[in-house]
Amino acid sequence: MVEVDKLKEVFRQTKLINSGRSENDAEHSWHLCLSVILLAEHANAPDLNVLRVLKMVILHDLVEIDAGDTFAYDEAGMSDQHERECIAADRIFGLLPADQATEFRLIWDEFEAQESPEAQFALACDRFQPMLLNLMTNGASWKQHGITHDRVVARNQRIERGSTAMWDRMSTLLEDAVAAGIVPPGSPGRK
Amino acid sequence: MVEVDKLKEVFRQTKLINSGRSENDAEHSWHLCLSVILLAEHANAPDLNVLRVLKMVILHDLVEIDAGDTFAYDEAGMSDQHERECIAADRIFGLLPADQATEFRLIWDEFEAQESPEAQFALACDRFQPMLLNLMTNGASWKQHGITHDRVVARNQRIERGSTAMWDRMSTLLEDAVAAGIVPPGSPGRK
Repeated sequence: MVEVDKLKEVFRQTKLINSGRSENDAEHSWHLCLSVILLAEHANAPDLNVLRVLKMVILHDLVEIDAGDTFAYDEAGMSDQHERECIAADRIFGLLPADQATEFRLIWDEFEAQESPEAQFALACDRFQPMLLNLMTNGASWKQHGITHDRVVARNQRIERGSTAMWDRMSTLLEDAVAAGIVPPGSPGRK
Repeated sequence: MVEVDKLKEVFRQTKLINSGRSENDAEHSWHLCLSVILLAEHANAPDLNVLRVLKMVILHDLVEIDAGDTFAYDEAGMSDQHERECIAADRIFGLLPADQATEFRLIWDEFEAQESPEAQFALACDRFQPMLLNLMTNGASWKQHGITHDRVVARNQRIERGSTAMWDRMSTLLEDAVAAGIVPPGSPGRK
């Protein structure tokens, strides 16, 4: 419990809606917990294990205490992200008694593997929440990094595997944002 | 999901262990989620509904978006705290579709009523976590407000209703902190 206090000091690219300061991983993880219980009824899986999804989103970013936050559009950083995060998982979950270390590592591995309906819905929430904050701050972090609509779609359409309803809603919000000039349309060379 | 982003801007008296800045309600709520899944095996209730406890700690502080954080030792603020928070609950849960508004309000009311084992364990976590942060920052917020050991015990011994094991552990940590001069012993007039 003491070690994980550090997650409150790992800052992300996403900006908060009201103050505009950078969001940290701990409050992001709480926002995901809330979105899981709010939106579970929109998951593709009819018999989703909500407790399992909650455990995933509570734990999913702990590895960033050591590995840091990798920006979603940082292709160099993402190339060795999983390797860096596995080393972090060994250390951080290794602080626990053996039975809990094993249980927590299995939950994190399940999230990373993206095969179970629970992992896919957890990922849908993990992608949807920062997009919503970006849209509500007029695309602040996308503009800062020159991210265009086609890259946002390519990165985030996996939301659909966890929740078609959430992806449909987000697609519409994104198209509205392009029409409003908040998100630049795709660059012709990339699409 | 947009409205609750404000919880990240509600600051508490507790200081973070590493940077010493004030903790906000969203990251506090996440830390409680983690403590629930870490410590559920130490709850007094043998058949605790962990999903219900998690929903409680995810939602329990949302009312502070309107009502603000009431410091645990602010007796004037606490006298009308529940009334202020009920008004906030009406507005905030009222933003949801009717079925979810009812469900979320029932969960918050259950936490406030402190009758179920789930509510009692959620409260144990809600008291244990800030005490741990206070101990790890050499009693920073207790010192700032002149809070003595007897008041800390009087305020927090309800942890025992949710988890005897957690209260036993915290009692020992507190006694060690008194011995180390981190928390002043009780004032004779109060005990």
